[in-house]
Amino acid sequence: MAKSFEFMIDEKTALLLIDVQKGLDDWDFYGGNRNNPQAEANMAKILSKWRRDQRPVFHVRHSSTNPSSPLHRSNGGFQIKDEVVPLETEPLFTKNVNSAFIGTDLEKMLREKAIEKLVVVGLTTNHCVSTSVRMAANLGFEVILIADATATFDRMGLNNEVFPSELVHNTSLASLHGEFAVIMDTEVLLNQMV
Amino acid sequence: MAKSFEFMIDEKTALLLIDVQKGLDDWDFYGGNRNNPQAEANMAKILSKWRRDQRPVFHVRHSSTNPSSPLHRSNGGFQIKDEVVPLETEPLFTKNVNSAFIGTDLEKMLREKAIEKLVVVGLTTNHCVSTSVRMAANLGFEVILIADATATFDRMGLNNEVFPSELVHNTSLASLHGEFAVIMDTEVLLNQMV
Repeated sequence: MAKSFEFMIDEKTALLLIDVQKGLDDWDFYGGNRNNPQAEANMAKILSKWRRDQRPVFHVRHSSTNPSSPLHRSNGGFQIKDEVVPLETEPLFTKNVNSAFIGTDLEKMLREKAIEKLVVVGLTTNHCVSTSVRMAANLGFEVILIADATATFDRMGLNNEVFPSELVHNTSLASLHGEFAVIMDTEVLLNQMV
Repeated sequence: MAKSFEFMIDEKTALLLIDVQKGLDDWDFYGGNRNNPQAEANMAKILSKWRRDQRPVFHVRHSSTNPSSPLHRSNGGFQIKDEVVPLETEPLFTKNVNSAFIGTDLEKMLREKAIEKLVVVGLTTNHCVSTSVRMAANLGFEVILIADATATFDRMGLNNEVFPSELVHNTSLASLHGEFAVIMDTEVLLNQMV
């Protein structure tokens, strides 16, 4: 099912930031040992470029239905991290499942604005980012996922073995690359936009 | 975002078989070194149990838009494998993206039949199975994924490292387990149904 992608960043290519929320700093809750400590700084760099160029920016945040989750609305962790706080002009969608496209008007708004290409950053690689990238691609959007502007945690396997965050991250990206998205690092993205 | 699941198999729990097609036997096309050689035999065992109990069964097959794909409709590989050929009474959906829920009436039919629980088997763990399980869960279905009735291939990483099929399979399941699905083996499933 391998596909090839050709991807040109144009003025209608939207930046989609997924679940960049303070609650994700509760590492123990999510599995510990987060990789890519520089992910938020990279997201901020990309966001700054998108704003400077007046390209479209969309934010998605997670509102957990579990009252004990750091991402429950009653919790301070629900807030978006300081590095990427939305401007009032930037649409902000709230979801309560992993996919940014289920229970939100994100797809509708992208179609209305004739946006066909998405650059995706956010948290976490193997959960909300992977799920949203897969669904975006299957809905017909072209997706670039920025490897060093996403991150994840250690994850326990079915036999209680621990898969380290970096391995979970890299195998998740390997499964997405060439099938659902083109994957690149922040510098490669920004260099090709100069 | 961890969730706990309680899952009872009842007479409305549907079996969903994804992309169990002959074209997937072209290992080289899909990355080689397929794991779980017994997956199809396990799918057949589960299917036989579902038919015996007259529980609902749904098949999904992939129709690739790439003419050189083993799963293109013009190719013999498009056929469903002998082990799980659908009965005329079993609905068969045809998709051309990874998710069984995009571009098909699968969700509509499940809702019409008031089906809320799915047992999922098929190919491949990290692509169409993972994508369909993620979307099923996010649409509100409860999902059991049968680990030894799915399988995948080696996958190349972003640095051209090869992730062996068994590792891709196990990390994919680890990312799904407890977040999108309960994961178990065929024997565990069948034993709890006796």
